[in-house]
Amino acid sequence: MALRISFDDMVAEFTRVLIKKGFAADAAAESARLFAENSADGIYSHGVLRFPRVIEYIDKGYIDPKASAVKVDGSGAFERWDGKLGMGNLNASRAMDRAIELAREYGIGCVAMRNTNHWMRGGTFGWQAANAGCVGICWTNTQPNMPAWGARDRRIGNNPLIFAVPRKEGPLVADLAMAQFSYGKMEDCKLKGQMLPVPGGYDTQGNISCDPAEIEKTWRVLPIGYWKGSSLSILMDLIATVLSGGNSVYQVGKLGSDEYALSQVLIAIDAEGIAGNAFISSAINEVIGDIKASEKVTEGSEIFYPGEIEKRTREDNLRNGIPVDEGVWARIRAM
Amino acid sequence: MALRISFDDMVAEFTRVLIKKGFAADAAAESARLFAENSADGIYSHGVLRFPRVIEYIDKGYIDPKASAVKVDGSGAFERWDGKLGMGNLNASRAMDRAIELAREYGIGCVAMRNTNHWMRGGTFGWQAANAGCVGICWTNTQPNMPAWGARDRRIGNNPLIFAVPRKEGPLVADLAMAQFSYGKMEDCKLKGQMLPVPGGYDTQGNISCDPAEIEKTWRVLPIGYWKGSSLSILMDLIATVLSGGNSVYQVGKLGSDEYALSQVLIAIDAEGIAGNAFISSAINEVIGDIKASEKVTEGSEIFYPGEIEKRTREDNLRNGIPVDEGVWARIRAM
Repeated sequence: MALRISFDDMVAEFTRVLIKKGFAADAAAESARLFAENSADGIYSHGVLRFPRVIEYIDKGYIDPKASAVKVDGSGAFERWDGKLGMGNLNASRAMDRAIELAREYGIGCVAMRNTNHWMRGGTFGWQAANAGCVGICWTNTQPNMPAWGARDRRIGNNPLIFAVPRKEGPLVADLAMAQFSYGKMEDCKLKGQMLPVPGGYDTQGNISCDPAEIEKTWRVLPIGYWKGSSLSILMDLIATVLSGGNSVYQVGKLGSDEYALSQVLIAIDAEGIAGNAFISSAINEVIGDIKASEKVTEGSEIFYPGEIEKRTREDNLRNGIPVDEGVWARIRAM
Repeated sequence: MALRISFDDMVAEFTRVLIKKGFAADAAAESARLFAENSADGIYSHGVLRFPRVIEYIDKGYIDPKASAVKVDGSGAFERWDGKLGMGNLNASRAMDRAIELAREYGIGCVAMRNTNHWMRGGTFGWQAANAGCVGICWTNTQPNMPAWGARDRRIGNNPLIFAVPRKEGPLVADLAMAQFSYGKMEDCKLKGQMLPVPGGYDTQGNISCDPAEIEKTWRVLPIGYWKGSSLSILMDLIATVLSGGNSVYQVGKLGSDEYALSQVLIAIDAEGIAGNAFISSAINEVIGDIKASEKVTEGSEIFYPGEIEKRTREDNLRNGIPVDEGVWARIRAM
């Protein structure tokens, strides 16, 4: 059964657990807010549902509740930071804050961060940049979880990429992993006996398939755009590794089956300072208006701009509470 | 029949035509080199095969042979340029050169350029950045040529995105349009009576299809990753539009059926200055070695890193001449 928990109650509960696990009160509250925002936006996989795994990682020592990211090198508009294995969402948020500061000074700013942890929803940091009036571009590497194009075994990452643009009526954010579907989505479809809406991997015959149960037999999950997503995944990993001086997907894989000590790149560009609020709104709204006027595939349906569904879900969830599985919530309450 | 033309002969021939069309000698030679490099790398669609259309655009007045890009605004690590409707490959090359200079000074540099023209192969500017020791990230918008996710009619662009990383043994470059296949590739397959290797669009029944003749009936070409490529395409267009103050895909479409006056973003990051040659090579080569050791889908096949096929093709074509269709070459010779 699904409860609906208020945003404030969810933040309070996460904060309580994080303080118990060793976080300072302000760090706990900030990280809790970021987790709760993911659930509020409808990205439940990286909010409430992910929280227990993060606690497990703290208990295993992968996430250090006392650590936070520090600058280790760089000058001008580029800086290298070391995440010191601190909480991933806090580290990435601090790094994007710094990229935004650099963008205000230099027009564009970039922080490359090594030794950090899973940032949960990458879109968070796109929204963060855009809410500060900046274009945000950021990505992370991951553990090996997808075959390169032409390969059977998983040696590249799904390395989510985020592009965000500010707008006074609300940002637009594209947040896309390089795998067509997350493992969570495939598992969910399988449990419900559903097919994926589009092909997500290969079956044992080597044909592309929408059947999550078949794909699970090969684990040949599909990159977006086949060879294209494979190429982009490799480049994002290499750039994050080189610029941060941190672990590549390959090296993260060597650490074992758990995913930690990642490398990330966070870029901000001072769009409002460059183009002004009025121009940005009029240019973007003209494009959105045109796209929404498209001839629809399904009559009566609506075409959403990137980030629009999250915005609507957030409004609903803030008003009516965030849907949470009763069992998962009980587990968190008992922590 | 295919001739094989030497790189120098091809450059000389393009240079001759461009001078005849009004370019200064040095601009003609530089643009000619960029066209010839695309064919040398095996990207024939954006070298010899595209050259006649570019000449047509000069004749129509869309490309101004006397114009070149100028800085109009910006300070620090970000600059806004106006392409003045000059030759697309020259403008983009100058903009990336400037982004590289900014990166040397500030660690990262960005040029957003409006009123420019088709840059031919986007990968060119990724190679350019990487050959200068920089990470290169760049993209362009295009005319409307793809439906947004959920739409039937084409209102978004295929907006190619390029990520490049330097390495002393040669760069790695991912160069990907947001459409799964180019119109040229689909036309080529159709003429040969071949199916596309993976689905490239929808048939008249609304099913995804590998048949280029069926896709041509709907023009519902597929974005990479379905909704994901659609989202990224929209964001790239909006960011290029906002940062450059130039045309969006929508506005390019309003200009008519020809494609000109585009908006682009070119970012360079001084990877060698940040990470050093030795670290870059060892980190990248370790990853490539691991990926190449993957279990292959087709026994005995090889897995290529992004940019490797172009590098091999270039070596062959520089040694043995660049393959050129006799008829196309005769047409260029007669210009």
